[in-house]
This record gives sequence, C-alpha cells and structure tokens, in this order.
Amino acid sequence: MRFARLGPRGEEIPAVLHDDTWFDIRSITADIDGAFLAGGGVERVRAALAAASLPELPAPSRFGAPIARPSAVYCVGMNYAAHAAESGSAPPENLVMFMKAPNTVVGPDDDVEIPPGSLKTDWEVELGIVIAAQTSRLASPAEARDRIAGFVLANDLSERDWQLAVSGGQWSKGKSAPGFLPLGPWLVTPDELDADDVRLQSWVNGDPRQDSRTADLIFPIDTIVWELSRYLTLEPGDVVLTGTPEGVALSGRFPYLAAGDVVDLEIEGLGHQRQRYVAADVGEGNR
Amino acid sequence: MRFARLGPRGEEIPAVLHDDTWFDIRSITADIDGAFLAGGGVERVRAALAAASLPELPAPSRFGAPIARPSAVYCVGMNYAAHAAESGSAPPENLVMFMKAPNTVVGPDDDVEIPPGSLKTDWEVELGIVIAAQTSRLASPAEARDRIAGFVLANDLSERDWQLAVSGGQWSKGKSAPGFLPLGPWLVTPDELDADDVRLQSWVNGDPRQDSRTADLIFPIDTIVWELSRYLTLEPGDVVLTGTPEGVALSGRFPYLAAGDVVDLEIEGLGHQRQRYVAADVGEGNR
Repeated sequence: MRFARLGPRGEEIPAVLHDDTWFDIRSITADIDGAFLAGGGVERVRAALAAASLPELPAPSRFGAPIARPSAVYCVGMNYAAHAAESGSAPPENLVMFMKAPNTVVGPDDDVEIPPGSLKTDWEVELGIVIAAQTSRLASPAEARDRIAGFVLANDLSERDWQLAVSGGQWSKGKSAPGFLPLGPWLVTPDELDADDVRLQSWVNGDPRQDSRTADLIFPIDTIVWELSRYLTLEPGDVVLTGTPEGVALSGRFPYLAAGDVVDLEIEGLGHQRQRYVAADVGEGNR
Repeated sequence: MRFARLGPRGEEIPAVLHDDTWFDIRSITADIDGAFLAGGGVERVRAALAAASLPELPAPSRFGAPIARPSAVYCVGMNYAAHAAESGSAPPENLVMFMKAPNTVVGPDDDVEIPPGSLKTDWEVELGIVIAAQTSRLASPAEARDRIAGFVLANDLSERDWQLAVSGGQWSKGKSAPGFLPLGPWLVTPDELDADDVRLQSWVNGDPRQDSRTADLIFPIDTIVWELSRYLTLEPGDVVLTGTPEGVALSGRFPYLAAGDVVDLEIEGLGHQRQRYVAADVGEGNR
C-alpha cells in the first residue's frame, strides 16, 4: 500500500492510494504516525479498502511528509563506497550513525530555504526506512524486516561547513537546519517494493547528479535496523536514512546550491521530489 | 519555581513545589511538556499558587524526569577544558554538538541497565537547559535567556566503545542506549538559580569523581542557546545538555560502571540523583 499525507502544511489529511485514487483514512486514524503504524492501522486500512468504506479525495494539491513528525531521525553515513571516496574517506568498517533534528521534516516539494550565511548547502538522495514497532536488541538482521513499516524517498540536506568545518567533527550541526529533510511523497509498505535493489537519482536544474542503486549499500537495510537495535531503541514512526551515493557537491565536481536552483530526486517505486531553493527570509538582526 | 513529575513510571503527575509541599497541577496541564512551557503554563501555575487553589500531594515515592519526552536532546561536547584534556582532545574552537535519542530520558533515581555487551558504561554529570519557546536565529546570546524555561540535573551516560571505537567518529551511537539519560529530580525556573556558576558533582559507590563549577564552561549557557539557534530550530521542551567536567572513567583514572555500582550526582540548587546499575535482562537470543 501507499500512504500519504495530503493538503496544506499543518492540515494534512492521512490517505491511502487504491486503483489510482487517494482515499481519506481519517475514519481510521487522525494521522500517519507511530501509533497508527504500531497499532494495526495498516491492516484496518486494508480491511476498509476491501469493504469500499473510505471516502475518495480529490487529486492532491500538495503532499506533506508521509509520516508525521518522528520521535527521532537516525542517519547512516558513508554507506556507499563511491560516496565515501568522494568525501575523502575510506569505506567504514562499522556502521556510522548520526542524528538529524526531527523538526527538519517537510513535504517533498516544499520550497527549501538556503540558511542565512550558508555557502555549502548540498543535496543527498536517500532511501528512508520507517519503523513499525518498538525495536530493541534484535538477535539478527533476519528479525529486522518485520519491524519496517515502509520506505520513503528522502533528501538528507547538509550544510557542509557547519557539518565539517565548524563542528569539531560531529555532523548533526550541519544536518538540522529548518526544512533540511524533505520526505515523501509516499510511504510504501515493504510488500510492494524490493527496496534492497532500487535505483536512486538526483538532478540539479535538470542536470544529473546522483545515479546509483541501493544494491550498492555497504550496510544493507536489515543490517542497519539490526545494528541500531543493538545500541538504542527504535520507536514506531522513527525514520532511518540509509546513506547517500556519490554525486554530491562535497565531491568538488559540482557547485553547491543557491537561491533559484531546483533539485529533483527520485527513487524507483517511491516517487519524485522537486524543491525550489530560496533565499532565507531574515530579519535585520539575523543578517 | 520547581516543577516535577511524581509517581510511577508512565503515570507521573505534574507538580509544583511551594513551601516545602508538592501541589498537583493537573487542573492546569496534563503534563510538563513543550506545550505547557510555551503556552503560559508557568504563569498559570503561579496564579493558582497565589490563589491557593491547587490540591496538595503526598510526599513523592518516585520522581520521573521533570520534562515529558523532549522532541530532541542536543548535547554539547568537550565544553570543560579539563575534560577535553582527559579525553585526549584540545579545547574546541567551535561549539561541538551531537544528539542523543530522546527516548533515553528516565527518572533521576531509576535503575540503569548496563547494556548487553557493554564494557565501558560511563557517567557524566551535566547541567541541562530546558527550552521554553520555539527558537531560531537569535541575533545574540543576550536574546537567549528568555528562551530558557529552566534547568535540570542530567547524567549523560555513555558507552565509550560504542561512542568512540565502533562509531566512525560519530558519538550518538554510544549515547542512546535505553535509560541513558536520567533527568531531574526538578526543573527549576531561571529566576531561582544562577546557573552560570553552580557546583556540579558526581560519585561512584560514594567515592568522589567529578567536582567542578558551571563557571568553567567554555561556551556558557546563553552562548550555547544562541549558537544552536543559528544552525537549527529549538522546540519548547527540548533539552540541551551543556557538557561534562573532568572526572569520568574515560580519563583512565577510574573503572567503568558495572552491575551493582551506585552513582550519585548533584548540582547545587538542582537536587540529587542516585542510580543503581544493574545487569541487562536479556533473552537467550540477545546474549
């Protein structure tokens, strides 16, 4: 199934796609969030679709992020060998995890502000995992798939100077600016996507940047969920970003983003994002 | 004022201290959280205390964390020169920020599990800042104090191998195990504490470990809030940990924590914590 949150920012309606039509699922849940995913919501929607009991929605004017604000956003770093190389690093021996402020989540096509003072805003197309159930200390990667509610397309935006030059080495400072996590358009359940081998791509102003496959992940999906569960407790609705492939501005091969740029991102089966980048609207005191 | 959340885990009652008695504030708010702090809740409690309209509570049997689960926990690293030195680092030129999973928050005196496989669980007494209002792009540190709801005592527990040896350099992996953020007992409003110069101490099995003052912070409180606001948006109820002083096991001067140990922590004006460390209750598959 494909879930989405449709409508103006802050007023999104939870919805499911069926036969090319979006259906309103507010009779089943107020939102698509951890409580819905962990509480059998997906099966209740499936039953309601079978009973044809859900009202149709008009064609969407805007997609919000397909999951309401997660309790945490975990990011895997340097998880494609060619991206590690373009960033000046060897492929990691251990899973590298950092966190991103969860209030960075926005809709897939919302305008993104270049933060005041930023000279190095960079794109990163990534496969995102949405967690289905509280998950701690899995015995093996084989136990991971049952804990996954679905997959989403994500742009893990970064300010490289904040991440690397003024960070003391801890990356979160450059990953957490407002709007720095466009998510969606859809959450796709695992039964509908072979997420272990899908193509992921990005473009800037129509020119290709990233073009790889998730089959190239150093730590694959189930290993990521298992590994994280050894160190922390994942909550339903949490988002895990699996890392970005080569082709970002940090490589030195492309310019960083500037106001007026348009970024497109796509993952096979997970839809398309298009963001316009705009100058920050800053007050006198913030220039 | 002093706020606390009193009672069994998951059933805490929001409360305020007045004349050595705890009063139930459920007539004003369901919980002590971001909505309460940002929505004028503190002033409504002040008025209710003046009107003597709040019911008394019995002496508390347990303190929960004084703030319900924050949307994010930001941590400042290496913010005391002597701790940076004992960790093998120079004092940082820039604020070092990493994040901790917000579901690590527990009560100040709750038992803490040594995670399965952990050989290097370490204590860190820290002054915690609780954010009062959505805060972004402050013009100067002088604007920060109005955005602070209060201060809390925190133990920023760490698994040093997970943080340093198997992390690829990103610390969050070793900071996010279940129970790794005892908070409280109280949230104290800024008018009642000169948090810029208070003594903070820790002990293991009664032996002194850390003993410093917040006056030694490299980046002081208002600078931390201002700096973070340049890179991200703080939300009401978020917790910012300001860093730990020298005297942790990572220094090599003391053993790491083991099951049976008792850790005490104290900050002048912010109360006392005492945690018993216990072996993890693991299933067969997790050993």
